[in-house]
Amino acid sequence: MAGASDRVLDALVEANATASPSYGADPWTIEAELLLAETFERDLAAFFVATGTAANSLALSAIAQPWNAILCHRYAHIMVDESSAPEFFTGGARLIPVVGAAGKITPDTLGRTLESLPADSPHNVRPSAVSVTQASECGLVYHPEEIAELTDVARSHGAALHIDGARFANAVARLNCSPAELTWKAGVDILCLGASKNGALAAEAIVFFDRKRAVDFASRRKRGGHLVAKGRFFGAQFVGWLRDGHWLELARSANSTADQLSAGLALLEGVRIVWPTEANEVFAILPRSLAEKLRAAGSVFYEWNPDSLPDNESVGEDEVFLRFVTSFLTRPCDVSDFLEVAGAISVPKFGTVGRNPAGSCSNL
Amino acid sequence: MAGASDRVLDALVEANATASPSYGADPWTIEAELLLAETFERDLAAFFVATGTAANSLALSAIAQPWNAILCHRYAHIMVDESSAPEFFTGGARLIPVVGAAGKITPDTLGRTLESLPADSPHNVRPSAVSVTQASECGLVYHPEEIAELTDVARSHGAALHIDGARFANAVARLNCSPAELTWKAGVDILCLGASKNGALAAEAIVFFDRKRAVDFASRRKRGGHLVAKGRFFGAQFVGWLRDGHWLELARSANSTADQLSAGLALLEGVRIVWPTEANEVFAILPRSLAEKLRAAGSVFYEWNPDSLPDNESVGEDEVFLRFVTSFLTRPCDVSDFLEVAGAISVPKFGTVGRNPAGSCSNL
Amino acid sequence: MAGASDRVLDALVEANATASPSYGADPWTIEAELLLAETFERDLAAFFVATGTAANSLALSAIAQPWNAILCHRYAHIMVDESSAPEFFTGGARLIPVVGAAGKITPDTLGRTLESLPADSPHNVRPSAVSVTQASECGLVYHPEEIAELTDVARSHGAALHIDGARFANAVARLNCSPAELTWKAGVDILCLGASKNGALAAEAIVFFDRKRAVDFASRRKRGGHLVAKGRFFGAQFVGWLRDGHWLELARSANSTADQLSAGLALLEGVRIVWPTEANEVFAILPRSLAEKLRAAGSVFYEWNPDSLPDNESVGEDEVFLRFVTSFLTRPCDVSDFLEVAGAISVPKFGTVGRNPAGSCSNL
Amino acid sequence: MAGASDRVLDALVEANATASPSYGADPWTIEAELLLAETFERDLAAFFVATGTAANSLALSAIAQPWNAILCHRYAHIMVDESSAPEFFTGGARLIPVVGAAGKITPDTLGRTLESLPADSPHNVRPSAVSVTQASECGLVYHPEEIAELTDVARSHGAALHIDGARFANAVARLNCSPAELTWKAGVDILCLGASKNGALAAEAIVFFDRKRAVDFASRRKRGGHLVAKGRFFGAQFVGWLRDGHWLELARSANSTADQLSAGLALLEGVRIVWPTEANEVFAILPRSLAEKLRAAGSVFYEWNPDSLPDNESVGEDEVFLRFVTSFLTRPCDVSDFLEVAGAISVPKFGTVGRNPAGSCSNL
Repeated sequence: MAGASDRVLDALVEANATASPSYGADPWTIEAELLLAETFERDLAAFFVATGTAANSLALSAIAQPWNAILCHRYAHIMVDESSAPEFFTGGARLIPVVGAAGKITPDTLGRTLESLPADSPHNVRPSAVSVTQASECGLVYHPEEIAELTDVARSHGAALHIDGARFANAVARLNCSPAELTWKAGVDILCLGASKNGALAAEAIVFFDRKRAVDFASRRKRGGHLVAKGRFFGAQFVGWLRDGHWLELARSANSTADQLSAGLALLEGVRIVWPTEANEVFAILPRSLAEKLRAAGSVFYEWNPDSLPDNESVGEDEVFLRFVTSFLTRPCDVSDFLEVAGAISVPKFGTVGRNPAGSCSNL
Repeated sequence: MAGASDRVLDALVEANATASPSYGADPWTIEAELLLAETFERDLAAFFVATGTAANSLALSAIAQPWNAILCHRYAHIMVDESSAPEFFTGGARLIPVVGAAGKITPDTLGRTLESLPADSPHNVRPSAVSVTQASECGLVYHPEEIAELTDVARSHGAALHIDGARFANAVARLNCSPAELTWKAGVDILCLGASKNGALAAEAIVFFDRKRAVDFASRRKRGGHLVAKGRFFGAQFVGWLRDGHWLELARSANSTADQLSAGLALLEGVRIVWPTEANEVFAILPRSLAEKLRAAGSVFYEWNPDSLPDNESVGEDEVFLRFVTSFLTRPCDVSDFLEVAGAISVPKFGTVGRNPAGSCSNL
Repeated sequence: MAGASDRVLDALVEANATASPSYGADPWTIEAELLLAETFERDLAAFFVATGTAANSLALSAIAQPWNAILCHRYAHIMVDESSAPEFFTGGARLIPVVGAAGKITPDTLGRTLESLPADSPHNVRPSAVSVTQASECGLVYHPEEIAELTDVARSHGAALHIDGARFANAVARLNCSPAELTWKAGVDILCLGASKNGALAAEAIVFFDRKRAVDFASRRKRGGHLVAKGRFFGAQFVGWLRDGHWLELARSANSTADQLSAGLALLEGVRIVWPTEANEVFAILPRSLAEKLRAAGSVFYEWNPDSLPDNESVGEDEVFLRFVTSFLTRPCDVSDFLEVAGAISVPKFGTVGRNPAGSCSNL
Repeated sequence: MAGASDRVLDALVEANATASPSYGADPWTIEAELLLAETFERDLAAFFVATGTAANSLALSAIAQPWNAILCHRYAHIMVDESSAPEFFTGGARLIPVVGAAGKITPDTLGRTLESLPADSPHNVRPSAVSVTQASECGLVYHPEEIAELTDVARSHGAALHIDGARFANAVARLNCSPAELTWKAGVDILCLGASKNGALAAEAIVFFDRKRAVDFASRRKRGGHLVAKGRFFGAQFVGWLRDGHWLELARSANSTADQLSAGLALLEGVRIVWPTEANEVFAILPRSLAEKLRAAGSVFYEWNPDSLPDNESVGEDEVFLRFVTSFLTRPCDVSDFLEVAGAISVPKFGTVGRNPAGSCSNL
């Protein structure tokens, strides 16, 4: 896992040089809030915390009472990887799984799930929130019009729309649209904007596009133990990250090496790319022998849950289903080196993957 | 909905006649505990509350920490009909749905679900409890050996077994086995024994077969607001209900009229009984016209969720999927009357359903 | 502890005789709601539960967010005797103790406590509710003008007013005022009206004088496991209790025997009545020897916390501080018998307490 | 508010330079744990979070069930300044205030409070934890024998001992004892060791001296949203802070300038030092005019709650009660400059405070 980008770290070091007011009244936090407003082209309320789990759970607590249901993809991070933090912060709201290919919920699957929920309150939990992961857990992005359709369905059932934007930067970098178009212009109520996976050390912003929803949020954050005394810690990271579009540069770089990796892997015998590569993740089925030799050569990647595979795909006896993640630190030559190792083992379909001229790259 | 049986009400009236100690130290509560121990042939710890939701949620809180998962049938009452009470009382534990025909989970579907849960603690919730509804939401009973197989699977994954016994009496009355065989002898840890649906006004017992699990339970019940001052209210109901096997008499009567109803409906043209009738519920698909006319004649029954239907069954355009519930108050002549009304409208396949000689019965 | 009064029990038995709709849609619940509206001379929203702890905690959850403070007397029942149920149902709101003689908070002590609370949100919990016990834990009643002054102070600090009315009937019976004057006309927002201590088996009403505050209450009650299926159980108790002013008759009777007991005890050598007797409780300091002999003669009473004594009062080495409670079942002859036993042991200051002519009374 | 010390920041920058495993499996976290074990001379379990509120609340949740009471000084940070986070993380445990001079609880006041708690479980919350702030909210330190006496009292009532060590470093730096003597050797169960107020950016360690108490702690931290992906962020701060006794150097420096400030202020006409200066805080009553002029000259300090003053002390009409805090960044010349400004306004009792020769110091 990469650390912070140089510019983010520089901002942090600079912010450290002088004393400043505590609990978010410092100039760095204030500038970060202004940069967010500028980035999203509107007035908004922003709060910073250290983890995506805290951001998502706190955000959901603002739109779900304990007797409400929150709908999300069955493989959403909030459903699978955040323990029962959503339940903890909401006081017991329930996550309801929605199906959909490639980690994406659709107006159809969302609508059908909403319709199927028993509606005899107070016996049944009732929906008040829909959470969408951008980019999805399978590395695909939602287009603005897709988001708009989902918010339409959500609103027609009385539910607000939350974006888990751990990879939101990668989605914006990929799509030909503005952050505003991908959020509030498409009806989004709350965005959890993650910087931690894309150049920050530990910094997530909860962005309310309607300040009214944030009325109790300072209290929620405080009682969750997520109000840090030296608020500039988050402020500085976000200033370094947002200023001059640095966040999108970082994301574009990671997306680009993911594209390169995906294209290269696709040329190898026995490798199948599972979903189009749209963010900084590549999901592929590899011969087990190839995976083992790549690991032996120093590469780090994870096996992925085969339950999430498309219906027409499966993992053979001698195969493994893997997720590769590139970061802003990944260089094209890192990918070339990796592919060369892969190519030297397997048999490329159309010839050798081009060697990195610099030759100095370490493995991915 | 029926009230209390005469014997239960008599006990309540008798208990009311004299002053007695508060908070469960009264002779009625003590006798109820002794009757439970006798009924289940072993030492146990019992606690009384007014609702099934309270009983189940409190019981689950004794075997599930906030970061645990509780597995139950996807249509279990605790999953569908108890709001988010399980989350409230456990502090946020998550319910995980298990599939299975006729509302019953099987060692196979339970095992596969347990295996499929991501196991990377603390990121993933981890199972600690399995909840089984006896009789199932579709009116079927689990045999002792089925329960034993489920506890085996649960234990091999570190999970305790809880029975939601809202209709436990109906199951015991149907099966040729003792209450002990159907619970602790088959490995059950906690039973929520419901009297409210079978002759009591409002009385449920949470029965711990291992006292150690009950160590904090008095505190849990108190802070949930479920410790009543005049504990004899529950004690007397349970004494009236358990004494001399009255609870099983009531259940046998309800089961028997359900059998009669099921058999009678099955003879009618266009009616399909969906699941075998094993407790006091009959699930059937009826021509819509028949259902409407029965309603017009004063019968009360509910449409049921067609999602729960077997794969090979569906509800036609002109049909409805209904649940009929008999109670200890339902008389054979009530069912005969009902079937006569039904038969006068529809065309019985094999002739007329026998008329109730007494003729004085009101409709179901 | 006494059971239910005959009229309450009769209503329950009558309600049991026929089947009726579930979950509070039955005619008894509806009539109980109408009787409450009539009793309080206005439109209101009412919900029924089985215990005072549930009533108070649920009511407070409607007016206190998890980061709020609830002010109440330091010896209030919600502070001392309801475990951490208030915290459980509010999601963590904090109880702040207010001092005051005889269990009563005053505009002055309430105001000073409110002023003293640190006001730097979100670091400090902020007040949103004040809870007043009517009659107080020391058996004194608040007059309508006292309640009005407290609501003024509460409102000027943004706090709503809740009445824990476990002995509200005793207060109304004592004061020359209407239930309306003692509640909403004096600014009360929510009343928990207790019937359990005054003639019911287990029945408490949460009364919202402003329906808007009750908007989520059905959900709160359900997820707390406090929605009973056979709602008539509560409805019938309240119908029996409220109809024809029965509740006030019961309270008047209990108040009257408390007066008799207080006056009689005051005549005994070495006995000091601690607070004026205004409801159905008598607090007195007795010679230990007298208390022991009364116990030996079959009387039941409790030692009380001497911390609550007035500054100018203390319990000597050979004394005990006791609480006596009369109920609607207590007869004047019961008190006479009790006093006779006491008088036969101690030496009355002004002569013998008159013997009960009937002579058939058992002890208190 | 100061930022991080150079050595802490350097460690952070160094840790950022290379990729490392996530969620605390990185070499920095591992080294930090080893340094803690070395510092405390024993095996222990340590967990890192970003805020003192999170550390304290999570720690308390490991030793207090929802129906338990936690005793702490009436002005403890967890009581006054952490919203209702303790209630949130414990699921509703109650904080019980203990009195004591200078922010310190004593074996006597603790014992008397414990004895005074009503003990009728489950009606009353029962104590399971005592929390002690080291140094106290009034800037005084507890000696090892004082801690040992408190743990004795706590244990004799079945309660564990927790230290809120936000200023633990200042206490160790002041006392002639080892960290071990001040904690587990004196019976302490859990220490929240704060680095944020003494040289770190945002880093607190929860230290369990008995690993058994930590069994669920990873789950508690995760569901609270306090498990950061890039764990080295905390690891590096603690490595930089603990290595070579840097943490104690920082604390000694802050303590020393606090001593200098306290001694200098004491010489000024009309100034009264309220409590002995033992950590890095000075509490003093100043003429209001003096305070205003110091503020005008750029000094930053806070008015403090006069309720916490000793009985024989009070704040006059023209006086203010202030808290001054020094940090590791405060230089002796900063204090001299400050005192010179103060002396030029007020009239020193014994002559002019020596001028800082360097003359380049900015104000405190």
